[in-house]
Amino acid sequence: MDHRRAEKLMRLEVLNTGSELLLGSVLNTHLRIFSEALFPLGLRIARQVAVPDGLPIREALAETFGRADIVLITGGLGPTTDDITRDIVTDLLGLRMEHDEEIWRQIQERFARRSLKMSPRNKLQALRPPEATVLWNPHGTAPGLYLPAFAEKNSPHLFLLPGPPRELQPMVENHVVPILSRLLPPQPEVEMRVWRTAGLGESLVEEMVGEPLLALGAELGYCARPGEVDVRIIGTPEQVRRAGEIIEAKLGPRLVSQDQRSLEKVIVDRLTARGETLTIAESCSGGAIANRITNVPGASAVFLAGYVTYANEAKTRALGVDAALIREHGAVSEPVARAMAEGARAASGASFALSTTGIAGPDGGTPEKPVGTVFVGLASAHAATRVEKLFFPTDRERFKQLVSQTALDLLRQALA
Amino acid sequence: MDHRRAEKLMRLEVLNTGSELLLGSVLNTHLRIFSEALFPLGLRIARQVAVPDGLPIREALAETFGRADIVLITGGLGPTTDDITRDIVTDLLGLRMEHDEEIWRQIQERFARRSLKMSPRNKLQALRPPEATVLWNPHGTAPGLYLPAFAEKNSPHLFLLPGPPRELQPMVENHVVPILSRLLPPQPEVEMRVWRTAGLGESLVEEMVGEPLLALGAELGYCARPGEVDVRIIGTPEQVRRAGEIIEAKLGPRLVSQDQRSLEKVIVDRLTARGETLTIAESCSGGAIANRITNVPGASAVFLAGYVTYANEAKTRALGVDAALIREHGAVSEPVARAMAEGARAASGASFALSTTGIAGPDGGTPEKPVGTVFVGLASAHAATRVEKLFFPTDRERFKQLVSQTALDLLRQALA
Repeated sequence: MDHRRAEKLMRLEVLNTGSELLLGSVLNTHLRIFSEALFPLGLRIARQVAVPDGLPIREALAETFGRADIVLITGGLGPTTDDITRDIVTDLLGLRMEHDEEIWRQIQERFARRSLKMSPRNKLQALRPPEATVLWNPHGTAPGLYLPAFAEKNSPHLFLLPGPPRELQPMVENHVVPILSRLLPPQPEVEMRVWRTAGLGESLVEEMVGEPLLALGAELGYCARPGEVDVRIIGTPEQVRRAGEIIEAKLGPRLVSQDQRSLEKVIVDRLTARGETLTIAESCSGGAIANRITNVPGASAVFLAGYVTYANEAKTRALGVDAALIREHGAVSEPVARAMAEGARAASGASFALSTTGIAGPDGGTPEKPVGTVFVGLASAHAATRVEKLFFPTDRERFKQLVSQTALDLLRQALA
Repeated sequence: MDHRRAEKLMRLEVLNTGSELLLGSVLNTHLRIFSEALFPLGLRIARQVAVPDGLPIREALAETFGRADIVLITGGLGPTTDDITRDIVTDLLGLRMEHDEEIWRQIQERFARRSLKMSPRNKLQALRPPEATVLWNPHGTAPGLYLPAFAEKNSPHLFLLPGPPRELQPMVENHVVPILSRLLPPQPEVEMRVWRTAGLGESLVEEMVGEPLLALGAELGYCARPGEVDVRIIGTPEQVRRAGEIIEAKLGPRLVSQDQRSLEKVIVDRLTARGETLTIAESCSGGAIANRITNVPGASAVFLAGYVTYANEAKTRALGVDAALIREHGAVSEPVARAMAEGARAASGASFALSTTGIAGPDGGTPEKPVGTVFVGLASAHAATRVEKLFFPTDRERFKQLVSQTALDLLRQALA
């Protein structure tokens, strides 16, 4: 595969330092930043390693000598005593640190501008080996450093980068990418495309498209989340084009997007294009659907109102659901889901209305309607109201995700 | 510190497999799950490595032989062709896979219960080396496996675990922790406590409590999320007790919980204890607050109704906000936030009502009311309605988080 060639030319690894990562206090978002910036260069991350602050950094870095061509190191550039990445790298390469007057000037200016008090340790942040290129950091005090590969040490190209994502991201874009582009030979053209599907399990998706996709010889991957599966192809433009034909032929009606757009974004886009509007009446999903829709910029053009009618009385007051209907069939029932969707449409004047009513648990189940039972309704100006009964016996948050996914996909299909 | 001793006795590493991690498509949340479960055993993660699917798994796993005592491997247990962790481990240890009838029976039952179609590949998930202990997985089809250390291979204790967090978390608690407890010698007593604060920035929290906490000699850490900061202390029971005194004295009114309970859980607990109820009228937060509240099991006892009134007309229809008030002051204004909270309380009959109205962006700002402007209201049976004006100029999702955090903390303080 083409990208393998690039990978062989330059093996890139990531070394994350910081005890907080291994204590689980902080999620590692660096790989997302790196991969987005590196993919267009034809570079892939061959391995990522996280180690606690201190000596384990030295051990893990030394192992990359001779194995990796490029190593991106994050963290440990700050002013506190556990920030020793610069010292370890300088020492491993047999270099010496010197005071850099320009770095020092910029640190002082930054503190003055924000009227912050400096600590004597801040001056240590102005130390660097003269062989390093300084990667300026307008978003924090710690500048990054780039050290070229030293053949006699068998050392890779080293980038020392700050840990905080809002400092790291611009530094990668403005400094790391330009330096790497100069190091890399011109790359063969490789594309990545992700097809998002809804309503099918991962193994079923593979059964439907796996064999013909594998036969293309491109790289194939799957990623499953509650109620949706992504199919990812990395290959030549021709391989990606042919994968698209296979996937559309086999998965057509289940395809949500071919450009990583979320289900909710696809819905907002389609409603906007049609000049139509949406309302949502949620019981068991508790606002999860409205929350997803309103995460989409521009949602206000199509989303009129949501009703989270948890209590029976709220279903009656806000949506006009007949109290007798609830008494007769129970709040978790086909007729109530129908009345909620139709009532929300009438109350808001929207062209489409979704409704959900079910038992999220852990309590509230009965033998006839166990925890996980849910009815999802769709009312519209264009067709008779539909209600689907589903069963998601799982934990509360996953239940809410699956219900919101099912309801949104019902609407997506109606908008197809 | 005491935990260092345990670390020397047993070196634990984590090996995450999955190209999606290195492509940045999925955030790695496994370390959080592991560290929370392992800490009470005196175990810390000495190193974490992520590699793409396929042969790199073999290479990275082989390196841990002789170096680590325990290796937790995640991912690659599913039914698709890139799921080859079981094969690699079995091969490295020189073992053979056999069909396990009990695993097969449980997979079939799971599919039947959910009326899902099986693929022939699902049968591969029932293969395991007979030397392995099966770790049952009620939340997915892939069971985990435990393989003891084989002295002649220099292999560590190996745990093969599923990648999806909802499957991983219960398996760690119910199977990994009990097996590890039997392997480990008794540990010296070390406690961890986390104090959750709201409404203060990380550097301000550190300025208020950092020095006296450091003087205790325990391990101190901070973790910041939008609108909340956790202070973490690891030390002897006496150090943790004294840290609690310092933190309560300095941060008292800002403390949300001392047991990692979320802000929304604290609110549901307090409302339940008082026998009072809640309604929420959201404009710019778009259902995010209702979604957080309804994530708490038992929320239905206190949460009556939520109104996501995005359109002006919905504010009037659902909440009775005077259309003239919106025309005169604009939807994003103090009087409208007040009328929304009071209208929601009247419509639902709840004892407390929260309201939000603001400009999430990226569009919709004006010179007088730029993107990020928001009014948060609280009406109750107990006190005059309060409205606070805030300014969060940030991206849309973070804006919604900060607004929901501010509104919920306003209510928490009223319930103190």
